[in-house]
Amino acid sequence: MFENIFNNVSKKHPLVHCVTNYVTVNDCANILLAAGAAPIMADDIGEVKEITAICNALALNIGTLNERTINSMFAAGKEAVRLGHPVILDPVGAGASALRTDTALRLMNEINFTVIRGNISEIKTISKGTGTTRGVDADVSDAVTEANLNEAVRFVKEISRQKNAVIAVTGAIDIVADSDKAYIIRNGHPMMSRITGTGCMLNALIAAYCGANTENTLDAVAASVAAMGICGEIAYEKTVGENGGTGTFRIRLIDAMSNLDAETFWKRIKVEIR
Amino acid sequence: MFENIFNNVSKKHPLVHCVTNYVTVNDCANILLAAGAAPIMADDIGEVKEITAICNALALNIGTLNERTINSMFAAGKEAVRLGHPVILDPVGAGASALRTDTALRLMNEINFTVIRGNISEIKTISKGTGTTRGVDADVSDAVTEANLNEAVRFVKEISRQKNAVIAVTGAIDIVADSDKAYIIRNGHPMMSRITGTGCMLNALIAAYCGANTENTLDAVAASVAAMGICGEIAYEKTVGENGGTGTFRIRLIDAMSNLDAETFWKRIKVEIR
Amino acid sequence: MFENIFNNVSKKHPLVHCVTNYVTVNDCANILLAAGAAPIMADDIGEVKEITAICNALALNIGTLNERTINSMFAAGKEAVRLGHPVILDPVGAGASALRTDTALRLMNEINFTVIRGNISEIKTISKGTGTTRGVDADVSDAVTEANLNEAVRFVKEISRQKNAVIAVTGAIDIVADSDKAYIIRNGHPMMSRITGTGCMLNALIAAYCGANTENTLDAVAASVAAMGICGEIAYEKTVGENGGTGTFRIRLIDAMSNLDAETFWKRIKVEIR
Repeated sequence: MFENIFNNVSKKHPLVHCVTNYVTVNDCANILLAAGAAPIMADDIGEVKEITAICNALALNIGTLNERTINSMFAAGKEAVRLGHPVILDPVGAGASALRTDTALRLMNEINFTVIRGNISEIKTISKGTGTTRGVDADVSDAVTEANLNEAVRFVKEISRQKNAVIAVTGAIDIVADSDKAYIIRNGHPMMSRITGTGCMLNALIAAYCGANTENTLDAVAASVAAMGICGEIAYEKTVGENGGTGTFRIRLIDAMSNLDAETFWKRIKVEIR
Repeated sequence: MFENIFNNVSKKHPLVHCVTNYVTVNDCANILLAAGAAPIMADDIGEVKEITAICNALALNIGTLNERTINSMFAAGKEAVRLGHPVILDPVGAGASALRTDTALRLMNEINFTVIRGNISEIKTISKGTGTTRGVDADVSDAVTEANLNEAVRFVKEISRQKNAVIAVTGAIDIVADSDKAYIIRNGHPMMSRITGTGCMLNALIAAYCGANTENTLDAVAASVAAMGICGEIAYEKTVGENGGTGTFRIRLIDAMSNLDAETFWKRIKVEIR
Repeated sequence: MFENIFNNVSKKHPLVHCVTNYVTVNDCANILLAAGAAPIMADDIGEVKEITAICNALALNIGTLNERTINSMFAAGKEAVRLGHPVILDPVGAGASALRTDTALRLMNEINFTVIRGNISEIKTISKGTGTTRGVDADVSDAVTEANLNEAVRFVKEISRQKNAVIAVTGAIDIVADSDKAYIIRNGHPMMSRITGTGCMLNALIAAYCGANTENTLDAVAASVAAMGICGEIAYEKTVGENGGTGTFRIRLIDAMSNLDAETFWKRIKVEIR
């Protein structure tokens, strides 16, 4: 299903412009390189349009937003849309402060994002214009479970219709949907939430997959979410085998991405359509 | 002695707001997650008060201070004090430039810190208003040794009285004191000074321990200093076992924190009261 | 040839002031510590002159330049020149945007750099005032190969003459030259380009080597380039031995630097003079 999509990333070697937070920016650069893509981080208003123009996709992440970089996000985002590049939004911590919620809403008003990725609380916040989070983590009461999955899928499709964007809600169960079709992805491991940056890395990776597969955004997003989850599983297995902890896990996650081949991807992917 | 204090961190899962430097910010986030706490990094003046309000503790670190983030530190710090949250200061490089020394002094004048943590040169600088450092490292002539330990303890207690804060002076021998009581902690390993960020990570960890143990700050700080030292020892042992170097050590340090249990903590802690 | 140069770094323990990008800043700090040097990162205009004054060398890197830090680079650079400190420029992504190209050119006009290090596309850009890159990577058509090596050496010597600086062009084959003499260095491994930051780390390392060997800049630069390449080879061997990937490689690179001794350096170095 996703094999060409997976192969296109290393084949096309997409260049991804990231305007992202300074907490996990190194991890974002390294996961892109591991996946066969290439990063460029640039956030000055004086160059973001030019930088985006030479790239294949743009990833915006409001994890450590400030007035200066918010302006750059608008400029880069509008230019990427004008050029027809995929533009991905990670509304990190939307709901945790008015600045984050408002910035995410304003970005979505002015930029037609190709993909919006967040945890369930962040996506609820941007749909309602208000919400609760636990800092940058999802509120427990919001969690997507097998029990509320159909309801969650309907909700994600509806947000996709509203925002005219593919929506990726990631958590224990991942949902990737447009207004018609949802992929449910059950890859991943809970240890992914015990390191910082798995969401940010995924956001960058989504941009790479979309940049290498511009004709098929929904599948590209689903494949990248699955790839990240599969690497989380492999990293966990390696970590346990080495009696490691979360430090080791983070390294093995990037290892797994750099070693991931189509066969492993295909063998491990757990995806369902609803 | 510190067992409940240790257990409270993973039980209460405190959320720690960090306004910190961009050099070691990823390590700070990962050490917090490894310890069972959760990080949120936010430094824009437009959101720091709100972000601090949803957190359990605030860690300020002037490692790469600038005009914009200094203002945010004041705003966040005052709000945290108003809300009764623990507020921790790491005056990185105080003594290395007038900006650092003055900012540390101004912060201490306007914010009643719960804890101030630094190397001995930084703490001397903030006590006298002037000092010498070797960049962000302690001046060798300042070092706390067994020979001058009693004198150092008296000095640290006196600073604590002056600043109305628990003081943590870390180095080969660590001293954690209020005006009455000092813990001398002899955990740790010299390799901790061969990677960047052990001080910054400890500052974030102190905030987590204080956020989970608001009724007993002195013990919380001492326990967090011991925990960091113990993880340094474990990391060193693993690194030697693997013929690794400082890169491996950094990863094993975070591993050790994520795997640290009360039994190991209790067995390894080397603490004395003076 | 370079043995004293190598030994001087750990013996003199040079303090390196870095005004650098937030993507790889942690790696830069850790590689300096691994090599026996010490880092201080400071980029506020209010302190950069003072910070540079207490250091042995200054490394400027425009990887995530912005208006604020550009001003700080000029202030720090001029002060370092005034004090006779080695000043190194890494014109990251020169050619990728007008801001990067112009900033690199303006910095070179106003500051007499001791060393300029870049990939071949960046160095071509700063020599001609215009150029093409693939983001922050060299354009494939520019690559230095055995076939065009003599021509490349002549070009690098000419740039050195023009800029009155030692020039280090790094890639599959590295060239380090002043106007008279070029070292060709064939250490390193292609995996170094599959992680972010090897160029930035090298830039910081060059500063450390120059700071510890002020009387012999050309040899200091060549030795640091060789040391980085050797560590890349060792890291690759370890990574393969562990079935690791690019995450592991990055850690083993810092390990290798922290464990590198003169004997290994001497045994592995592949250097030629042209």
